[in-house]
Parts: sequence; C-alpha cells; structure tokens
Amino acid sequence: MAAHRNLFSIVVLSLCLCFAHCILVRTKNFQRNKEVFRFYRPPSEYNYKTEYFAQKVDHFGFHNKDSYQQRYLIADQFWDPNGGPIFFYTGNEGDITLFCNNTGFMWDIAPEFKALLIFAEHRYYGTSVPYGPTAFKDPTKMNYLTSEQALADYAVLIKHIKTTTPGAGSSKVIAFGGSYGGMLAAWFRMKYPNVVQGSLAASAPIWTFLEDANCDAFDYTVTETFRKSSPDCVNNIKALWKTLGTTASQAAGLSKLSEMFHLCKPLKTMDDLDALKGWIQSALVYLTMVDYPYPSSFLAPLPAWPVKAACRPLSTPLSGDNLIMGAVKAMNVYFNYTGTTPCFDIGTEATPDLGIRGWGYQSCTEMVAPSCSNGKTDMFEKSDWNFKSYSEGCLETWKVKPDIDWLETQYWGKNLSSASNIIFSNGLLDPWSSGGVLKTQSDSVVAVVIPNGAHHLDLRGANKKDTPDVISARELEKKYITKWLN
Amino acid sequence: MAAHRNLFSIVVLSLCLCFAHCILVRTKNFQRNKEVFRFYRPPSEYNYKTEYFAQKVDHFGFHNKDSYQQRYLIADQFWDPNGGPIFFYTGNEGDITLFCNNTGFMWDIAPEFKALLIFAEHRYYGTSVPYGPTAFKDPTKMNYLTSEQALADYAVLIKHIKTTTPGAGSSKVIAFGGSYGGMLAAWFRMKYPNVVQGSLAASAPIWTFLEDANCDAFDYTVTETFRKSSPDCVNNIKALWKTLGTTASQAAGLSKLSEMFHLCKPLKTMDDLDALKGWIQSALVYLTMVDYPYPSSFLAPLPAWPVKAACRPLSTPLSGDNLIMGAVKAMNVYFNYTGTTPCFDIGTEATPDLGIRGWGYQSCTEMVAPSCSNGKTDMFEKSDWNFKSYSEGCLETWKVKPDIDWLETQYWGKNLSSASNIIFSNGLLDPWSSGGVLKTQSDSVVAVVIPNGAHHLDLRGANKKDTPDVISARELEKKYITKWLN
Repeated sequence: MAAHRNLFSIVVLSLCLCFAHCILVRTKNFQRNKEVFRFYRPPSEYNYKTEYFAQKVDHFGFHNKDSYQQRYLIADQFWDPNGGPIFFYTGNEGDITLFCNNTGFMWDIAPEFKALLIFAEHRYYGTSVPYGPTAFKDPTKMNYLTSEQALADYAVLIKHIKTTTPGAGSSKVIAFGGSYGGMLAAWFRMKYPNVVQGSLAASAPIWTFLEDANCDAFDYTVTETFRKSSPDCVNNIKALWKTLGTTASQAAGLSKLSEMFHLCKPLKTMDDLDALKGWIQSALVYLTMVDYPYPSSFLAPLPAWPVKAACRPLSTPLSGDNLIMGAVKAMNVYFNYTGTTPCFDIGTEATPDLGIRGWGYQSCTEMVAPSCSNGKTDMFEKSDWNFKSYSEGCLETWKVKPDIDWLETQYWGKNLSSASNIIFSNGLLDPWSSGGVLKTQSDSVVAVVIPNGAHHLDLRGANKKDTPDVISARELEKKYITKWLN
Repeated sequence: MAAHRNLFSIVVLSLCLCFAHCILVRTKNFQRNKEVFRFYRPPSEYNYKTEYFAQKVDHFGFHNKDSYQQRYLIADQFWDPNGGPIFFYTGNEGDITLFCNNTGFMWDIAPEFKALLIFAEHRYYGTSVPYGPTAFKDPTKMNYLTSEQALADYAVLIKHIKTTTPGAGSSKVIAFGGSYGGMLAAWFRMKYPNVVQGSLAASAPIWTFLEDANCDAFDYTVTETFRKSSPDCVNNIKALWKTLGTTASQAAGLSKLSEMFHLCKPLKTMDDLDALKGWIQSALVYLTMVDYPYPSSFLAPLPAWPVKAACRPLSTPLSGDNLIMGAVKAMNVYFNYTGTTPCFDIGTEATPDLGIRGWGYQSCTEMVAPSCSNGKTDMFEKSDWNFKSYSEGCLETWKVKPDIDWLETQYWGKNLSSASNIIFSNGLLDPWSSGGVLKTQSDSVVAVVIPNGAHHLDLRGANKKDTPDVISARELEKKYITKWLN
C-alpha cells in the first residue's frame, strides 16, 4: 500500500467531482500547476447578465438572520415570455461562470425551446460566499455549506425570479447540472418537484456517496478506460509504481527521477516520491474524465481522445528507465500538450482556492465517498478505505465529523421508485459513471448511457467531432425535456 | 372589530392544531382552566415500552455536535418479525403518550396487519426537549425546532430501529398522524419516500399555512358546524358579542356578567371583557373540533355531539339577558359537563406548559396561518389578518421573524402531483378541514371525506356509536394501507 494513500489529504479530497478542482484535490500536498490553472479563466463565449440575490444564510433555522449575495447569470435573448420555459443550472463546487461557459448544451437548445437561461452559483463558491473568504477559517461560519441549503437557495431563487420577471410566473423550470451539479439537479427534482418539472442530471454519481458503495469501482473504471485504448498501457502503468520505487531507492535515484520528469523542484525524500505518484495518478484520472473526441481546453489543453494520446508512448511492454520515460511522455500529454511548460511543479505551497476549500469541507460532512484501490482489477497501488482515519482528518482540519449515513437517508439511496422526470446520463469512459444510475428506474427516471462519452460530455456544446452516441443522447434528452414541458 | 382580536397573543396562537393546547392557545391571556387540563393526563389504555434515542440536535449543519434524547413508544405484541410492517406515528406538538393513547385506530388494526407500533415524540415537546426546559428562554436554543428537523429525526430513528431490531430491516413503514402530526406524516412521505411507504394524514390542514390561504375559512367552518346543529344557535352567537358589550358598558355591567358566568375572578376592565369573549370563542371552536358522536373526555368531559348539546339552550331566538344565560349554559356544556366546577377561571397567570411554548415558536417561524373573521359568513366579530403586527409580535416574543413563504416552497404548496401514497382524511365538522386536502389529487394521493366527522375522528379507536361514514373511511384507509404494503 502506497504511503501517500494513507495521507488524509489525498483520501479526503481525492473524490472531488468538478474537473476544475480535481487536479489540486488529488494532490493537495503538491504545488498547483499554474499552466493548468491558466485555463480556469472562463472564456466569454456566451452573452449573459450577472445578477445577485440576497439569500438567507440559514434556511433551516430562524435565529441566524444573516444573508449573503448569491450570484446568478441570466440570459433572456432566446426566451419567449409567453410560455417559454426556464432552464436552470444548479451550480456546483466552483465559479458559476465556469459552468455557464462549459454547458453549451443549454445554450445550443435554448433557441429551440425559447428558454430563459439561469446559472445559479452554489453557496461558498465563486463570489457567493456567506461571510466572505474569512468564513473558511471559522468552522461556525462554514456551518451553512450543505447541499440542503444549496437546494433551498435554488428553490427560493426560482420563486424570486418567477415573481419578479414579467412573464416568468407560469414558466416551467427544467434543472440541468453536471457532476455534483447533476446530483443537485436530481435531488432538486426529488425534494422540490413543485419548483422543477424535470432534471437532466449529467454524470451525477449519486451512488458513490453511500456507505456501502464499492470503494474500488472508481479506479477500476479509470483502468478500463485506459484498457480500451491499450491493454499494454494498463500493464505498463501497473508496473510503473514499483519501478519508480526501485529507481528512487537507488543512489541518486530521486535526482534521476526529478530530471527525467523535468520537475521544477527536485525530489528530496520518499514523501516527495509519494507526491510524484499522486501527481501522476491525478493526471491519469483526469485524462479519463476529459477523454473527449475532440481537442478541448477546459482543464488543460488536450488533444482529441487524450487517453489514447497518453497511452501512445506506453503501448508496448516496457520496463526500467524505458517505462519511466513512457510515463514522462504520457504526463507531457496532460501537462504540456502545448509544449510551453519549462518544468513541472508537482506540489503546492499556495493556499488552495475557495472552491477547493469548500469541497474539502463538503467531503468532510455530507459528501463522503468511500475510496480505495485493490491493485488487482485496477492499475493503481493497493490502498484501503479507512473511514476512521478519514474522520479523524476531518475533525483535525475542519472541526467536524463526517456523517456517512446521512446522504442515503436524505436523498433516498438506491430507492428512486418515487422519483419522476429525471434523466441520469453517464459516459462510460468517465470514472464517475461507476457511481451513477446506469439503468432506467421507471417510466420517468431514465438512464442515458453514452459508451464513448467522458464526464458529462452531453452537457458540452455540439462539436463536429461528436460521436454518434452523444449526438443521440442529446436528442433523447431533448425529447424527454419536450415531454416534461407539454 | 373586537379589540382582543388585535392582541398578538390571540392571533399568533389561535391556530394551534392539537386539541390539548388550543384552549390555552386561543386564550393566552387567560388563566388556564384546570378542570380541562386534568384530562391531559394520558390514560394507560395501551401496553407499550418507552425508549430513548440520541438524536443530533442539528441535522442540517455539522458545527453543533450536541444531541438530545428523543422519546419513543414501542409496542411489539402484535408484530410478526417475519414481514410485519411498522406503523409509525409522527408525533406532533405535545407529549407523545397523549397521541399514543388517543390514536386507537393504530392499535385496533395492528393485530390484523401484524404491525410493530412506534410513536415518536416531536422534538421540543414532552420529554424530548434539546437543552431541557431552559431552552425556551434562549432563542439560540430554540433554533432547532422546525418541521424539517423533526422529519429528519423520524427518518433517522426509523433507520436506527430497522438496523437494531431483528426482523425489522426489511419491514415496510406506514406513517400515521393527526392534525400537525398528519401534516408531518404527509410531508414525511413526500420528502422521505425511501423511508415510508405511505402515510395516513388525518385532519392535516397543510393548506392553512399558505400565504394566500383564505384567512376566514376556519371560522366559517366553525359556524357551519354550529348551523348544522341549529341555525338559531348561530344567530344567537352572532348577536352575543354586541349584547355582552352593551351589558358590560352598563352600570355594574361587568359585575353582572361575572356573576352570570360564574367567574372565579370578577371582570374589572373592558380588556377583561375581551378575555371573556376569547374564552367563549375558544370553547366554540373546540366544541366543533371534538364534535364526536359519543361522549369523550380527551380534552374535556363532553357528551355525544357536544355542539348540539351546547346549542340546545341557544336554539330559539334570544336577546338581552336571556341570550347571555343561553351562552352561560352553552359554556357549561364545554367547561362543566360533570357539574363539579364551582367557578370558571378565564385567564391564566401561570407559565404556559412546554407544548404551548413550542407551538408558539413554530407559529412564529414556519407555521404561519393567516387568520381572520369577516363577521358576515361567520358568527364571530370581524377581525382582520395583519401579518405585519403578527410578525412584530413574534420578534418581540421569540426574537424571530416568521417566513410566510417558506412552507409552500418546502412542502410543495398545492402542487401535489409528484406525491404518492398519501391519504388525506378530513371530517367536515372540523374547522381544520377548511385547510385540508378534500379532493383526490391522483391515483395514490387520495382524499377521504367524513361528512359527520370532527378532528381526526378516524384515528380514534372504534366506538359502537361511530357513524357509518367514519366506519367506511377506516375501511377504505385499511384498503389503501394493504395496497401499499403489497
């Protein structure tokens, strides 16, 4: 079992959902890669107005009378105030402009549906932070960061919009969300069907966060996505961890690895080796999540089918230095596709940004995802799930204890028989699909499976390189939305 | 408009649901009638065990790690651990033993269904008070008294019972509740259908607590129930208020009224006259709520069909002193049916008990029921609904502001199309039926109307004097429960 896997920081944070944060999150001890984060700055592809709404900090108690300004983005250029619906994005763990600009599907179909577009920011992310950034230093002020409060925000915001926007009063509302935002979209329909008529929950791993979830399913799916590109690539990666250890333990081994990987700061201890392994693992995970059929630059500038590209230098049986050099080339695909990165920073000394901190807190309260690798059916080193040490880490970091039972009680676990009008879409290349709803549950709780899709590919804007399965998935989604609206 | 109707205390508290508290609540400024409250002591008709479960004080935040002991009653003598269901009473605003002993329907049908009976106490009532009785003096400690927290308690308690009681793991759960407890039963199924298979929501006025509710519907229904017994009775009561005022304003008029009504403490001011009017009004309301076809002693010892009995001395056109004497005799039916009360205490100087205080808080936060009389279609003095002054009273008393919008958002308002497996039963004699669901909403959200029934008569134990409509209502309810369980 790799030592780094025992680090609370890795385990706690390894299951963040949003692309944007994962690279940091899986490698909390490493310096963030600025080349990657350059791409966070959202492009201004779409035309919207930014608005703010004063939300109660606490929807579930009356003693705290504080409020905060929730940001939301609104685009009414396609909307027909005489009956046009509202398409409402249930923001997830990050700056809402990021999700607004990367959910092209809503923009693509808005004209056809004559829809009003709303993108609502999740509390404690972006600019919508109760008590401001200092909240993250005070556990009492973090207390209102829960999915329940976020859903209540969305319900109250929609009521506000409907009562203040002429023509919107009787508009039906469809919720959209990807990843954690997809979970929120599904839960929104389940808990507030009076507010939303239906939900498209894309790549929403609602079953990842159950106490009895298979903790190794995620890494298994990462491995399978690599295997589809190249079985030898999987074998090489499986062998890589031991090879790195052997090399590191040789005289001047750490220096050698530092040079081979072009690290900005040389490795000095075996803990640094764990950091290197974590950095590689993160890249492998994110490669599967963004394994899109066309070049994309959401998280990092990447070629089409980046898993295949990363596997190219690892597609014949390798060992020793050759294996390490293959891995270096694979990392170059993820971290340096533009060829402009002079060296790699694998650790971080900077303060993580708000988004990371928020998700760290959520992971330590409601959003507990059992996480492990078995080292057999997956290509990673064996690593066990240890809730006790996870919980201790949460108490130390956030002064809170996670409740691993609560989410199942609150959001119905695997019993969705009473839910209605929800599409759960999943791309099977995406490791998060391992905790998604892959089978249709009823007439109106339907699974849409995209065999060649990565993390909520269907929510992205149409692209000429789109595979037939995502094209037909979007068509099907439009049909369901049409049905819900009629 | 009667002055007393402007009193915050009357308006705020006039819409409590549970019999047990209403007499106090509608007449907060009056001394409680000890003869009435003697009947609070629950009889030990039924055989159950008392258990306690450590509940989180806050289910919706992680900072407060306090817990409290929730009391619940359990009866397993009828239960078949091999597949028998759990019948779960969602406790309302009072001591759970009261509801346990007055929900005979559950006890009557338990043997047939081989059911495990559970009666769960609502937080902040009975012995289940977080932080103990001193909580009521500290608004920060009252913060956790909400319906959402209560429902979360029930969901978590059921999980606990199912995981710790051999044989209960796969038992289906049916929720039962009357009045506010009925509202909770319905909401429980709506919000936690994974936990409960279906709910019998008896006399649950879920639509009373909406901002746009007809504020005069309650008093209209009280009046109609009296009219069914005697139209002249209604005319007399309508005339009574002015007659009392005229008499009181005469020389020695207050003394005269005090003697006629056998008051323990003589009326001294015109405010005291308002107190007398409030006392009479409360009795009139409660007479309709407990207008059962057989003698009962739940709230006060009463004859069968007590409205008819109270109307007997008011069933011919009366005026002046004759009218007042008729009213005195009507009050004697409600407050002194046993003939052992030497004089009447119409005010209270004692501290209200916990239950009253809890409901007072709930009325000032989530449970806002617009309340008024128009003095035309009802037999009361005109009294307007004034949310502003209501809200100011709440701030003064509890340091909280009511949110009149929230309940509709949280519990779906009149849009129950996504709900399933709920019976809303209502007796039409009961004024709370004015805010109930009287029409079937869908295949599985059904209304059961009992024309000759008072407040959740169907939940009471079978009685040989039961009317055919309540007998068939219970049969229908059993059929639905059977359907849900199969």
